[in-house]
This record gives sequence, C-alpha cells and structure tokens, in this order.
Amino acid sequence: MIALLFALTLGGTARAEDGYALWLRHAPLEDAPWLDRGPPSIYARNGDDPTIKVATAELERGLLKLGGKRDPWGVGTMPRSLPNTPASFELDCRGDGKPNDGRFRVAADRSNKTVKISGPGSISCLYGVYALLRELSQGEDPLAVNLDEKPAMPLRMLNHWDNPDGYVERGYSGRSIFDWWRLPDHLDQRLLDYASANASIGINGTVVNNVNASPLFLTDRYIPKLKRVADALRPYGIRLYISARFSAPHEIGGLPTADPLDPRVEAWWKERADEIYAAIPDFGGFLVKANSEGQPGPQDYGRTHADGANMMARAIGDRGTVIWRAFVYSEVDPTDRAKQAYAEFVPLDGKFAGNVIVQVKNGAIDFQPREPFHPLFGAMPKTRLMLETQLTKEYLGFATHLVFLAPMWEEVLRADTGRGGTVADVIAPVGMAGVANTGSDRNWSGSHFDQANWYAFGRLAWDPGLSSEAIAREWAAQTFSREQPFLDAVVPLMLGSRQAAVDYMTPLGLTHQMATGHHYGPGPWVADLARPEWNPMYYSRADKEGIGFDRTASGSNALSQYAPAVAAQWDEPGKTSPDYLLWFHHVTWDFAMPSGKPLWNELVGRYDAGVARVDAMAQTWASLEPYVDAQRFTDVAENLRIQQQEARWWRDASIAYWQSINGLGLPAGTRPPEHSLDYYRSLTFPEAPGN
Amino acid sequence: MIALLFALTLGGTARAEDGYALWLRHAPLEDAPWLDRGPPSIYARNGDDPTIKVATAELERGLLKLGGKRDPWGVGTMPRSLPNTPASFELDCRGDGKPNDGRFRVAADRSNKTVKISGPGSISCLYGVYALLRELSQGEDPLAVNLDEKPAMPLRMLNHWDNPDGYVERGYSGRSIFDWWRLPDHLDQRLLDYASANASIGINGTVVNNVNASPLFLTDRYIPKLKRVADALRPYGIRLYISARFSAPHEIGGLPTADPLDPRVEAWWKERADEIYAAIPDFGGFLVKANSEGQPGPQDYGRTHADGANMMARAIGDRGTVIWRAFVYSEVDPTDRAKQAYAEFVPLDGKFAGNVIVQVKNGAIDFQPREPFHPLFGAMPKTRLMLETQLTKEYLGFATHLVFLAPMWEEVLRADTGRGGTVADVIAPVGMAGVANTGSDRNWSGSHFDQANWYAFGRLAWDPGLSSEAIAREWAAQTFSREQPFLDAVVPLMLGSRQAAVDYMTPLGLTHQMATGHHYGPGPWVADLARPEWNPMYYSRADKEGIGFDRTASGSNALSQYAPAVAAQWDEPGKTSPDYLLWFHHVTWDFAMPSGKPLWNELVGRYDAGVARVDAMAQTWASLEPYVDAQRFTDVAENLRIQQQEARWWRDASIAYWQSINGLGLPAGTRPPEHSLDYYRSLTFPEAPGN
Repeated sequence: MIALLFALTLGGTARAEDGYALWLRHAPLEDAPWLDRGPPSIYARNGDDPTIKVATAELERGLLKLGGKRDPWGVGTMPRSLPNTPASFELDCRGDGKPNDGRFRVAADRSNKTVKISGPGSISCLYGVYALLRELSQGEDPLAVNLDEKPAMPLRMLNHWDNPDGYVERGYSGRSIFDWWRLPDHLDQRLLDYASANASIGINGTVVNNVNASPLFLTDRYIPKLKRVADALRPYGIRLYISARFSAPHEIGGLPTADPLDPRVEAWWKERADEIYAAIPDFGGFLVKANSEGQPGPQDYGRTHADGANMMARAIGDRGTVIWRAFVYSEVDPTDRAKQAYAEFVPLDGKFAGNVIVQVKNGAIDFQPREPFHPLFGAMPKTRLMLETQLTKEYLGFATHLVFLAPMWEEVLRADTGRGGTVADVIAPVGMAGVANTGSDRNWSGSHFDQANWYAFGRLAWDPGLSSEAIAREWAAQTFSREQPFLDAVVPLMLGSRQAAVDYMTPLGLTHQMATGHHYGPGPWVADLARPEWNPMYYSRADKEGIGFDRTASGSNALSQYAPAVAAQWDEPGKTSPDYLLWFHHVTWDFAMPSGKPLWNELVGRYDAGVARVDAMAQTWASLEPYVDAQRFTDVAENLRIQQQEARWWRDASIAYWQSINGLGLPAGTRPPEHSLDYYRSLTFPEAPGN
Repeated sequence: MIALLFALTLGGTARAEDGYALWLRHAPLEDAPWLDRGPPSIYARNGDDPTIKVATAELERGLLKLGGKRDPWGVGTMPRSLPNTPASFELDCRGDGKPNDGRFRVAADRSNKTVKISGPGSISCLYGVYALLRELSQGEDPLAVNLDEKPAMPLRMLNHWDNPDGYVERGYSGRSIFDWWRLPDHLDQRLLDYASANASIGINGTVVNNVNASPLFLTDRYIPKLKRVADALRPYGIRLYISARFSAPHEIGGLPTADPLDPRVEAWWKERADEIYAAIPDFGGFLVKANSEGQPGPQDYGRTHADGANMMARAIGDRGTVIWRAFVYSEVDPTDRAKQAYAEFVPLDGKFAGNVIVQVKNGAIDFQPREPFHPLFGAMPKTRLMLETQLTKEYLGFATHLVFLAPMWEEVLRADTGRGGTVADVIAPVGMAGVANTGSDRNWSGSHFDQANWYAFGRLAWDPGLSSEAIAREWAAQTFSREQPFLDAVVPLMLGSRQAAVDYMTPLGLTHQMATGHHYGPGPWVADLARPEWNPMYYSRADKEGIGFDRTASGSNALSQYAPAVAAQWDEPGKTSPDYLLWFHHVTWDFAMPSGKPLWNELVGRYDAGVARVDAMAQTWASLEPYVDAQRFTDVAENLRIQQQEARWWRDASIAYWQSINGLGLPAGTRPPEHSLDYYRSLTFPEAPGN
C-alpha cells in the first residue's frame, strides 16, 4: 500500500511551463518589499487612447504576475505602509509636438514614491511600460529605474514567409499564426499575444505573407481579412504590410501585361492601393521580391528594378512604402552569384523614388552561418537601404539546433563598410527586417531558445549598440531564471552557440554546403542541380589540390565590390581571417594556417571543435535542471541531443566527402567518420519541413 | 486622470481560457464540503504499475483542480473533522483472472468514508478514476458514487488522416499532433495530454497516419519514432496502429510486385511486422485502404480483398489485427456508387481470416450529413465488422459550424438491420472507429464545440446505449459550466444542431451537394468532373420534372441490399420518411409531402428552417455569456456568426440552382437568394483547408 502526498505532484504541475509566455513571463519576485504592500495604483492620462489602454493593461498584468507569490491581493488587503515603495505608477504620454517615434522616459521619484512613464505619444508609454517591466522582471527596484530611450532606426519589421493556406516557407514552428481561412470573422487570441510580444521589443511593422507571394492578398476577398489583423495590431504600434506579386495585374487584374510602364498597370496598382487604404488608413505598403528565383518582375518587360519599384511607389504615394528586395541572381548570368546584386543595383543608386526602400540581406549569398557583410551596404549612398536578417534557421539547424543569432547580427551591424560608417550607420535612417520564426507551435518559435532570436532581433533593431551578451542575459533572466548561477552558465552557452554551428557545418569560410531543397543536413557532394549556384560544389570549389572560392582579382573578383580599405584585409590568403579564408580564396590542402597547422588539419579540427562545443552545451544545460521547470528543461535537453547527433553527422559526412576529393588521411588521433560516404549520400528526408 | 483597479483585470484574466483542458477542466467546486477538510489521501495497490501511476496522478490532479477555490492546501493545513466526507480514495486493481477489458467498479463506503476503485487490471483503475472524476466534476458527492461498468465493444479507436509532413487530410484544426520530424528524439507534452483525454473516454487504440498512406511509416527510420509514441500511449491503455500502403513491398521493398499471393510479398510483410513487434510488443496492427480512390490493392493483381487482407493477417499472426476498409467504389463500375461496397464484400463473407476486421462507414456514400445505415451491417454474419464514423466535419461545415454529431451516430447505432439486431449489436463483438478531429490548434479540434464530437465518440463506443442528451449534458457541464440554466439552454442547442446542418445543406435525403475537392460550401451545379460519382448532379438527379435518386427496383435498386423488412419502409415515396425521400426516390417537384405541401415548397421550407435554427443557436449562445469565460465565449460567438452567413449561402445558392432547373417561382413569402446563381458559381477558395 503506498500513500501519495499532494505537495509533490502539485509542485511538479505548477512548475511545468510550455513557453507560450515568452520573455513576458514575469515570474513572481521572491524578495521585493515594494510588492508586499499590495499592488501599487496605476494612473493614466488620456486613458481612453487604445494604446494607453494596452499599456495600462500590460503593466497591470506584469505587476500581478511579479506579485504572484504573495497572499492574494485585492479586496480585504490592508496596505501596510513601507518606506521606499512606490505608491503609484503614472503614464503621461499626451504628446509634446516632437515626432512620435516611440521615444520614452521612465523616471522614479523617491520623494512622492511614484514612477512616471512619459513620452511624446501614446506609443511612448507602451514602450516605456515594457522597458520598465523588463527591469522589474530582472529584479530591479522600481524606484531605481531611470530610462531615457529612443529607437536607433524608424522601421523595425518582421517578414513572415507565410502562405494563404497556412504553410510557412522555411518555417519550423508549425503553421502560420495568421488564420486567413477564418479571418475576418474570427481573430485568434494568439494574434493579440503576438502583437504584445512584438511591441515589447519595439517591433513596429510586419509583412504578413510570403515574399514568394500569392496574388490572393491583393483580391477584394482579402481586404477585410487584412483589415481585421491591422485593427488588432494598431494599438500596439504595429503597421501591417503585405508582399505583393509583381504580375498580379496580369494574373488577377485581367490586364494583358504587368509592364510597369504601361499606364493601365500603374492604374491597377493605384486602384488596389486605394481599396486597401480605404480599409486600412495606416497600411504600411508592399514588400516585393522581383526577378529572383523565378518570381516575376520588371525585367520580364525589359524594365529595371527602379522602373518597377517607382511605379508601385507612385501608386501608393505618400501613404506608404515600397520595400524592394535586392536578393536577386539571374537564371543565366554565369558570374559569381555573390556579385550579382551589387552589379544590378549599384547602377540604380539615386534612381529610386523617395518612398522606396531597398532591402539587402546581411550577406551576398543567402543567410549562411557566416558571410562577410553585403557589399551593397555603403555602396548606394543615394538609396534608402534596409538590412534583412533571418530569424528562422533555414541554414542553421532548423528549430532543433540551439544557435543564438545575436552575435551574427552584431558582426554585420558593426562591420565597417569602409565608405563612411558601419552597416548600422548605413541603415540607421531606414531600418531592419527579420524573417520571422513564429508559428502555431505553443512555444511560438519551434524551440524555447529560438524565442531568443526573435527577442534579440527586436532589441538590436531598437539599439544596435547593445551587446549580444547583454541581450542574452536579459532574455534568459526574463524567460528562465534570474538566479546568477543560471545566468552565468547559460549566457556563455548562448554566446558560443553560433560559432559552434559555423564550425560543425561550414568552417573557415565555406558556405552553402547544405543538402538540396530543404537545406537540412550536409550535402557537400551535390553537383548535379540545374543551376550551378544551387550546387554546394559550386561554393566549395573543392578539388584534389585545394578548396575554396577565389573571389580575388585572379578569380571572380567579387572582392572588388568592397571599399579598397575593406578589400585589403581579404586580398591575400595570408592576411585573411580564417573565418573568411575559403570564402575569398582557393588554397591548397596544405596551406599553412596562422595556427601553424596545414589547412586540412585545421579544417578537421574546426569540425571537431564544433562537435565538442555542442557536447559542452548539452553538459552545461544538464547542470541547470534545478533552475528550469520540468517541461522546458526536457524540451531543451531533447533538442540538444538532436543537435549533438546532427553536429556529428555534419562533421562526419563533410570529412568523408573531402577525403574522397583530396585522398588525404585523417590527422593523427582524429576519429574517422562513423559511416561511409555512400551512407551519407543515401540519406533522404522527404518530409523535411519548410521546403 | 483615471485610476485602475486590479480586481477587474485579474478577474478577466483568470476567466480567460483557451480550451486546451478539454472536458478534463475540473473547474473548482463552490459547494463541496467534502473538499473543505483538505485533499483526501489516495492509496494505491501495485502502485509501481505505470498505469496505476497515471491513474493516481490523474486523480490527484483532478482533486486539486476541483479544490482550487479553497485556501492553499498542503503543509500546515489542519484537517477539521467533518461528517460524511471521504477520508481516502483507494485504487485496487490487482487482477482477478477475469479478462482485463477495462471493466471497473467505483464503490463508496460511508461507514469508513472511503471510495474504492477496483477492477481486474490496472486499466480498470484508470477508467474508474476518470469515471469518478466525471461524476465529481458534475458536482456529485463522492460518497454517493456507485459505478459498475464495462465497455460495450473491445475496440474503440481513432483514425488519424495525418501525413508524415504534418499535413492533415480533411483536418480543420491545424497541423498533425504527431511531430514525426522530431520523433523519436523529442516527444511533445501534447501527446501525453492526448493520451489522457482519450483514456478518459475509453478510447484504446489509435491509427496514427493517413489511410492514403505513405510507405515511410514502414521504413526502418520510422520504427523508433513509432516506438516512442507507443511507449507514451501504453500506460494509458492505448495501442498504436498504422495505416499500411498495400504497394509498399514494391515501392520500398525492392520487390517487382505487391501481389498478395507472391510468397516474397508475404515474406516482406512478415519481416516488417517482425521488426515492428520487436520494438512495439503490443503493436495493434495495420489499417488498409485498398483499391479505393486510386489507392493500390490486391485487385491490381487480379486478387480479392480477402486475398490481400489474409496475406497481411498471416504476416502479423496472432500478434495483431488487419483492419480492411470497405469504403470502395470502382473507377469504372457504372452502377450506383451506393451499391458497390455491398456488391464487392458480401460475396467475401466468411473468407476473411480470424484476425481481419472489415471497417464499414456509417453510410454507403461518404460521411454525409444524413445517410441511411450502410447495408453491409447485418449482411456479413461470418465477418467481423467495425463501424467507421467521421469526427472531423469534412461535409459538415469544417470546424466553424457548430454541429454535434452524437445524434447522427445514435441514429446509425440504433438502426435495426432487419437481420437480427441493430448496427450496435452487429459491431458489439468488434468495435468502432472515428476519423479524428484533433490537431495542433490550442483547443485541439479547431473549435470548442468540436471537442464534444471527440468526447461523444468515445462515450458512445464505450456505451452505445447512452443518449445524445446525456452525453451533451455531461460534456457541457465538465467543459463549460455546471449551472442548470446554462445546461438547460446549451444542451438543446447542441441536440438540434445536426438537423439544422442537414436542413441548410442537404435536406430531405439529398446528398453530396458540396463543392468539389475541398467540400467547402455548396456546389449542386457541378456536373463536369471526370467520374460521375464525383458530381453533385449525379446525386441530386435534378431535372425539369423532379429531383432525387431512384434507388428502388425502378432505379438502381440499391434498396434491395437491405433486409426486406427494412427495405419495405423505403420502397414507396409515400411511405418513406422525408429524411430519406430523395435518397431513395426521384419525385416530381409537386410531389405531395406528408405536411401537405408540394415537395418544392417543403424543400425551400427546410432550407429556411435550417437557417432559422442557426440564428436561434447564435441567439441562445449570446444569452450564455454570464456562464462562459470571455475567450471561449467570443470564439464560439464568432464561429456562430460564420455559420449564420454560410447557412444562408448554402440555402441561397441551392435554391438559386434548383430554380434554374425547375423554373419554379418561390413559395409566397419566401426571401429570394441574395445573389445570382452565377455569383455563387463564381466563388473559389484555393486556400481551403484539408484538401
């Protein structure tokens, strides 16, 4: 006969969390005297403003959760007078003429024990409330909080690659959060929680559909759907944008052409824009992927990107923006793919309308684990350039690998263009976009740690000066635990995770070695795809003598697209950082690395280092069980086990393949690949997600 | 200046629910003295048994939630002695030699204040715990509970039409709950909650993949995935089955054929079964859709369904079961589709192996709003027949229409086959399957009320004698509110909802009038599809003179497949219930209905009645706001608004079309269709789900 006590299970149950709360978890504060006297009052000016309503409700909700451990508050609570505890929080954002860019102040006044949140517009109070809660959630005393912030760039946007049927291209977290099927009649609560999460990190725009766009979003049937979403996002300071299919006038407009210089085409876009603005006065505008990877565009009619973008810009007028992607490479152009965007766009500098933004990926290829910054940054001084990053980990292990991306974005933002500023300086007047990793999974991002990439994107777009370390620390404290031992262990784990992925996937400047189509796992041997730049072999250029893509003057000379001072650091193998060696140079397998080791030994060593780092991450996480609820601890532990296996897979398959090319043996003491090259080549994953 | 009080928001927040808890919500009991003394103790015999562990944990969890409103229990709680309150719950399921079919007893003993749960095996205690909690959740006094139950049929199964990539065919609730991509390394908590929900209503088997089966599930790579799921379901008394693709030996087995009489083919299936059983000793077996809608099968090799089923049955042996679907209709056979399953299977009666089950849909066409029971029931006395129902509402408004299906299933279960028993009697020795409506949506089923169909299926499979009314009442009390005024309003709403759908979609025995492919909305005009039986026109047989499908001797004579006594009630239009009139008869538009009205007027009247019923449902729900949390109230209200619009759409489009055929005017006082027939014909829904 066994008897069971409740306390046990109760504890267990209470500590099980599913991650839905994100960084807005606001775990109850143990030691916070200012909460002991009961909830402080909240006073709000112009409290009827929808955004102020949200700000007040969020502050209430946050304080209630932070006070959770205390005796039930409310009726019957006798406030005991305690020294130095806030009597009230005041929201005062009535506008002061200054542009309402979201700047805010949070100022505590010990004398009358109030914390005042103020700014030039209602959105200031919303951002101020989230900033205050961020401090409180990390254990800060409200009367010690003193913040005065404004965003570094005006546009801080998510790009959703979501299709009308709910499928998410490169999505690893379930279906789309946008239920176009039931909209406009039904709006899911999740969409309000999505708005709250975005506003809490300063995101103020969202493109709700895939850049490989369906024309459905431009039909009358979708306008009420878009309107209901826009109405839901508006109080959170988020504007709605859509991806627009360039050929829509022909496909759904009944016109014989989509030629941007045909007046009927421009008239059609104008009429569509008018319909949308009639329903959504603050509609953000159109994002366009044109003449790229088979998408239609102005070049189909012998026109330029500027012709296409400016035509749509005229249709929208000063009501909104046309965001035009620079991610283009030609079906036929035999030149180095890395050179094509620069070659196509630089000649157009100064030719784009004032309400056109050109959106440039962080690197010249495609969201690889590591790329040098895109040479377009700094090269189009008369054009508004915006940075495009990818939160969803298409080339970085999907949602199962723990890879914290802030260090990668920090790398590109701080890169000196050699043309009068860093990438961050170039985009400061415009903004930053991130391809979203959100989906219908309960934890939003497919894994708990991928929430950190969503969070880090918003924080860096607000302030590129923040360090990855600071972002990791504040995210982990809000999301998991404020305890120092936890933070001191998990923050380094996060900070090292990106270099680990680079090392076990594509070390030393290798790129695009992923398997075909789904980009899951290694495929360095792939060389049979229709277009050369689809083949990993195209990028590795591996042969019996050596490996690497010569992008110097002796090769494709993509290097010449960079400012001379920048190019100079990469123009000789010996001077080039090992991080970019094989990106810019084709070197022999015995090339002497700075470490003194031959390239081949260094390469194998990098793979091993990546695997070892993942093993260490798993070991560290295992030691953190005391600080994390059971469910999330297990979720992360299981993902790390997958990452350990897949890091080995990457390492073994890659080494087996390089050996088949260079015929070299393994450096002494190196573990041979677990399986034969044929085995790795034989693996197929027909059900791989996001493809 | 406005001040905000916490109580308000707190209340609001606390009352927001997302439906994830299903009927296991166990809302805190207000007036339950037996809980006031603190949580009773739980004693369990053979407490190390995994199923007993689950049973104990579930009872704890339930009692804690029921006691939620009280002061925190646990350390420091001084039990006050109260009369007639249980001191303990005892689980005693050590087995008594009887077959462990899940039978259980729950017996309260007022003298020593214990409630004892017992039965012949551990699963008895699990079922007993759920049955006890069902009573307690409805407000029953534990010391008044006295239950002695056993299941009416051995197999109570769900069939998931889920693909390896997570897409769910005919799914309207998000993606698959089975994450094959991350299995076996990661098991989602949702899968344990799924097991608990199923066990709580007696479901003891699940087929985890689509009957239009991918051979992937038979590959080595999937066995560990299946094993981890099976291991998770086992403690809940649920066996795992898979749908098997008949051509797999050829497609993935490297054999030149899948001919069931080829010894290499049988050997291949035996080897696959051995591999699976080595990993999953209690694997349930294979579900097969063969020679139906383009799926491969034994007829591709000139063999019979029995040849195919028996070959696989030999491969599995006494370890499991082969479930063979009778849902077949030939690509070429010109005869009435309703006749084909009977024609193909009756000659095979007695030819199926002992471990083969033939699974028959409730009606002879395909999960329509209303069909007469399938003539196969009772017609194959020497074959084990199982009933297949559909929980997901492919033809019943997807997840947005509120349609409670228990009355439909009650109708078929209680139908007298005229061959020595009801349908329920025929399947009693075998079982019942339901095509699942579960998905990744937070509320599991795409809408809160669709949870009731999952619940009702399990309850009816456990006891077909239960009334729809009783099931609706116990479900609503556990899921929403125990308050009488709520139950007295919502139960009739549920009970009338199915007839409403029949009336606004396919009244008077009409069938399959849904649009092509996705089956969303009306398409009575469709007549151009490759195969006749895909066209709504094929089913309505509407022409200038009349409407309906003559299935009497003067027509297809499908009627002759029923027992004479049964057929007799349908052999003349005058004798035939209006519910089945146009199913069995082609009658003139002025045919005199029992109501005295001509058919045309009666038909229009039925459409109007359906619309009116939905309006009344919405009105009733609006009055129930005080009883339901804000989020679920709004979710349901918004779905009902959609249903109101779509009921009108069905009514108007159908009437507009019939008028174009019969040229008749509308009965006096009837509202004309809102749009032209051309408008209704022009509607397209390329992003319709589940297709």
